Amino acid sequence: MTDLTHFNQAGEAHMVDVGAKATTDRVAIAEGTIVMLPETFKLVEQGGHKKGDVLGIARIAGIMAAKKTADLVPLCHPLALSKVSVDFELDSNSSSIQCRATVGTSGQTGVEMEALTAVQVTLLTIYDMCKAVDKGMTMNNIRLLEKSGGKSGHWQRA
Amino acid sequence: MTDLTHFNQAGEAHMVDVGAKATTDRVAIAEGTIVMLPETFKLVEQGGHKKGDVLGIARIAGIMAAKKTADLVPLCHPLALSKVSVDFELDSNSSSIQCRATVGTSGQTGVEMEALTAVQVTLLTIYDMCKAVDKGMTMNNIRLLEKSGGKSGHWQRA
Amino acid sequence: MTDLTHFNQAGEAHMVDVGAKATTDRVAIAEGTIVMLPETFKLVEQGGHKKGDVLGIARIAGIMAAKKTADLVPLCHPLALSKVSVDFELDSNSSSIQCRATVGTSGQTGVEMEALTAVQVTLLTIYDMCKAVDKGMTMNNIRLLEKSGGKSGHWQRA
Amino acid sequence: MTDLTHFNQAGEAHMVDVGAKATTDRVAIAEGTIVMLPETFKLVEQGGHKKGDVLGIARIAGIMAAKKTADLVPLCHPLALSKVSVDFELDSNSSSIQCRATVGTSGQTGVEMEALTAVQVTLLTIYDMCKAVDKGMTMNNIRLLEKSGGKSGHWQRA
Amino acid sequence: MTDLTHFNQAGEAHMVDVGAKATTDRVAIAEGTIVMLPETFKLVEQGGHKKGDVLGIARIAGIMAAKKTADLVPLCHPLALSKVSVDFELDSNSSSIQCRATVGTSGQTGVEMEALTAVQVTLLTIYDMCKAVDKGMTMNNIRLLEKSGGKSGHWQRA
Amino acid sequence: MTDLTHFNQAGEAHMVDVGAKATTDRVAIAEGTIVMLPETFKLVEQGGHKKGDVLGIARIAGIMAAKKTADLVPLCHPLALSKVSVDFELDSNSSSIQCRATVGTSGQTGVEMEALTAVQVTLLTIYDMCKAVDKGMTMNNIRLLEKSGGKSGHWQRA
Repeated sequence: MTDLTHFNQAGEAHMVDVGAKATTDRVAIAEGTIVMLPETFKLVEQGGHKKGDVLGIARIAGIMAAKKTADLVPLCHPLALSKVSVDFELDSNSSSIQCRATVGTSGQTGVEMEALTAVQVTLLTIYDMCKAVDKGMTMNNIRLLEKSGGKSGHWQRA
Repeated sequence: MTDLTHFNQAGEAHMVDVGAKATTDRVAIAEGTIVMLPETFKLVEQGGHKKGDVLGIARIAGIMAAKKTADLVPLCHPLALSKVSVDFELDSNSSSIQCRATVGTSGQTGVEMEALTAVQVTLLTIYDMCKAVDKGMTMNNIRLLEKSGGKSGHWQRA
Repeated sequence: MTDLTHFNQAGEAHMVDVGAKATTDRVAIAEGTIVMLPETFKLVEQGGHKKGDVLGIARIAGIMAAKKTADLVPLCHPLALSKVSVDFELDSNSSSIQCRATVGTSGQTGVEMEALTAVQVTLLTIYDMCKAVDKGMTMNNIRLLEKSGGKSGHWQRA
Repeated sequence: MTDLTHFNQAGEAHMVDVGAKATTDRVAIAEGTIVMLPETFKLVEQGGHKKGDVLGIARIAGIMAAKKTADLVPLCHPLALSKVSVDFELDSNSSSIQCRATVGTSGQTGVEMEALTAVQVTLLTIYDMCKAVDKGMTMNNIRLLEKSGGKSGHWQRA
Repeated sequence: MTDLTHFNQAGEAHMVDVGAKATTDRVAIAEGTIVMLPETFKLVEQGGHKKGDVLGIARIAGIMAAKKTADLVPLCHPLALSKVSVDFELDSNSSSIQCRATVGTSGQTGVEMEALTAVQVTLLTIYDMCKAVDKGMTMNNIRLLEKSGGKSGHWQRA
Repeated sequence: MTDLTHFNQAGEAHMVDVGAKATTDRVAIAEGTIVMLPETFKLVEQGGHKKGDVLGIARIAGIMAAKKTADLVPLCHPLALSKVSVDFELDSNSSSIQCRATVGTSGQTGVEMEALTAVQVTLLTIYDMCKAVDKGMTMNNIRLLEKSGGKSGHWQRA
């Protein structure tokens, strides 16, 4: 296990130099889940085909947030994203909604942070839109699923 | 259970009118956890008293993110925050770091979203700073713990 | 007709002092229209009840833009908005979509600029989502309809 | 006429993948007009060579807004702009000011949205600076004039 | 001399709680200077009454930056500014331009940081616009001149 | 000495066209100093190895600000930075802290403005964190030290 690359030898933070890295196509996929009351879950589920489209709005928030990642995460490099998508899977048994974000770029650093940011803000927005009826919702299992491109190559959650 | 307040009768999203709400002191506390490999946990733990201060930087990112909440969450009202703090609890048994954010304001809407945003971006920043050595870190149990002030009064997680 | 208040006696721009103004409830309503090809109009219209919800996304963009007004308009005061809504009226005869934004605040300056910004970015987003099939769309009649509150009182377009 | 590219097969919004597109030089030109009272027009006209330079300030606002386009328009790709200019034409007969914005980039997507955003925020800023004397100003004919570069090649308003 | 208020007892940073502070009218004035070559100074000076209005643009940048202070300075409270102005004094003997910013608010914290940010970004913008002819320009004496309002009352540079 | 490139022949500001410039590796180094009371200096110095890490936080603020340069400086091109670092030198004799920022990119324009912005916001943040005990701190000698890359080649302060 190596040291943390975001610090120099003296332990001071810096935005690490990626100038010598190759520009390659990079993709990252992240996911996360929000668990809610069954009644809340039904309200969200109905919005998908009737009125009150919680997930459509949360998706937009997640896509926009991916573009703000370097504004939020201090040592993250600004990147020109070439693709962002956000998908949902609804599980009525557990009254939970799983969100999956896929981000692509052609650049010198990866887009893992952009994918995770998209997931987090998508879930946050679901929380915001449902909190009037359910303050106890919980977000879980926010994590990277897969990344490709760059020197470290392909990585997939075991 | 009432309807979702972020939509009007026609099911169209809006930023709900809070103009008639009283201006009261409001506080919200949220928490969340990031689980990592034992080796990663040791690197973070050492940063606290040696070099490579991951948690100090993540705290700053979380505080700054609280101020950007209305930029990230589409229907969230902009608010002048009067207080933001972020605390950590390290658990070496589970190799996990728990983050707790407290946000206060004197305003017409609550600061639940600001507290949750601070937690999320704090955890994201820990992920960013450690991802070179541990891509598998997972964020869990991001949720509201408590809120006070406003018409709905005091709420505490059961 | 008086001079332009955004300049001092020497003709230099400044953000005019509103510190002595009363804090009152203020509302502004603005509107604007985008004209498109009949085929484009049909695609947007279908999105409202099927898939591809152009207007739902444009509405979110407009609401979020209202919150960014003071970032865009140099001499505009930052304001804590208490309400933003965006409505549409579709006219199939003219293949045009009219957007109307209502913004409210309790503050020392009005929200005319916020309402106009919401209209503009709503229309821009409709353009963006349809431009692959219709680059010739035109935005028209972007203007203030009504404002109330503040020293200058109620104003309504004749 | 093809479908709207900002939606996938299921009708869900995404930031469309441009990773496979060629990086080419792209230029877009947009225009728009603001109509005002003759007295207001004279005040603006005088600012150009005396004091109270409304148009100089509006131009700066428009250029800065072009850089914020991807922050405002949800599914717009972030782009590194290589050029932005904003020009005015004053027509005393109609008491109107026409604004024209030209934006260039070398990238994988076009800059139509950046040019339109520059025009809109330029006109918005003129409105802001003159609204103390003329609330009835109207913005018209905001539209794309011409674009070049990219797969769809050259397009010009008929 | 007391401790630094931006840290708690444990030495951890926080955005200090101002909820119990009185809302009072607050003003802060800051200044700073940029020194340049005599030839550069002449170009800037001419812009004031001919073409190439460096100072008019720098003033706008400074005013807009004041509104972004809480985005830039991590532990700074977001504030609704009621007034921002930026003035210049040109000294041909020393080929230097002095900038002075005045910021006002009615709030629970002062606007010293906003005034200093306005000065800094005004000077930065002058540098940017002149750097093609003079890379050696230096910014000096950026400092607070005076503040009033709040618990600590009136302060003036000795 | 040539004219100011940020203006066209008519003296109107524009974001100058860099589309024809070569993409080269570019580096810029800037510096600046903040002078304070001896007692304040001691508080900051202690933070480096005990609690209250003023410089660690100021460094993060400076790095984040470098990424916001094109948002602050009106005619500055947006750039994807490949490296940002901020270093300090403490001089107890003069009770001053010198900050030095190094920024790198591979692009069509230089990063002088990014390096200067990082220095300014780093110093601003030091001011913010110490102002409760020392309002008289002064920032001095903010200037470019060196730049390389691009058509104008290497430049170094004499």
